[in-house]
Amino acid sequence: MLFELDKRLEGDSHLAVTHKHIQIRLADDTRYFWVILVPAITRDQDIKFVSEIHDLPAPVAADLWSISSYISKWLKTYTKADKINIAALGNVVNQLHIHIVARHRSDIAWPAPIWGHGAMEPLENSERDRRLALLQDWYKQASGII
Amino acid sequence: MLFELDKRLEGDSHLAVTHKHIQIRLADDTRYFWVILVPAITRDQDIKFVSEIHDLPAPVAADLWSISSYISKWLKTYTKADKINIAALGNVVNQLHIHIVARHRSDIAWPAPIWGHGAMEPLENSERDRRLALLQDWYKQASGII
Repeated sequence: MLFELDKRLEGDSHLAVTHKHIQIRLADDTRYFWVILVPAITRDQDIKFVSEIHDLPAPVAADLWSISSYISKWLKTYTKADKINIAALGNVVNQLHIHIVARHRSDIAWPAPIWGHGAMEPLENSERDRRLALLQDWYKQASGII
Repeated sequence: MLFELDKRLEGDSHLAVTHKHIQIRLADDTRYFWVILVPAITRDQDIKFVSEIHDLPAPVAADLWSISSYISKWLKTYTKADKINIAALGNVVNQLHIHIVARHRSDIAWPAPIWGHGAMEPLENSERDRRLALLQDWYKQASGII
């Protein structure tokens, strides 16, 4: 069965690059530099998508953690973040996706989690393109090692 | 430098078992079956603890993900959870800790994340001991494969 991205994820984020079946997406929110990873795989013939990390094939899970660590490290340095928040929630959008969010003491939700804290504020096109280019440049440099 | 558990983590959770330097702890909250993993390692001579997953030595990170997947799978089955939430936040308690929470559509915070949603409600001793025994029994069975 072909993988189909959840419509809400598709609407709320932009694809930067795909690495080993894992989509690296930029959340459409000016309030935080926020990356979303989506393993673009189906569960089996009958189930369109995976919901839980523990249901991923082991090599995909390993790739997911590896990518999330590399992005987290880059994001912390690049944005001078005070903390990186990583989460797999999925209570609303059931298709597995991992949030990686650069948090600053000055951000609007600090120190609370960002989810459920006000509405997303869509990026201007120029800022969206700038962040996507940053992620793509990071990936070009990192793809040999991740 | 010897590892020292953050006082707030110590007060809010109970140690079930330690596997390869990773403490598997039970959050002291009757509202959710909530496990907290703490890598009991120091960063270096000068820094008492690790804050970010990407700062863990690679083998410890691998163990952490492996354990979190096994616990997540068990917890989902045992509690008949609708979703498992996994998160590394740490905006308040900076010492690295990973939350693994069994979520139900009927729980008090659903579908919002549990953090910042009301105060923890401490477990009765009997329920605390029951959950700790469950985690220890799970670990006895799983320790050969994780």
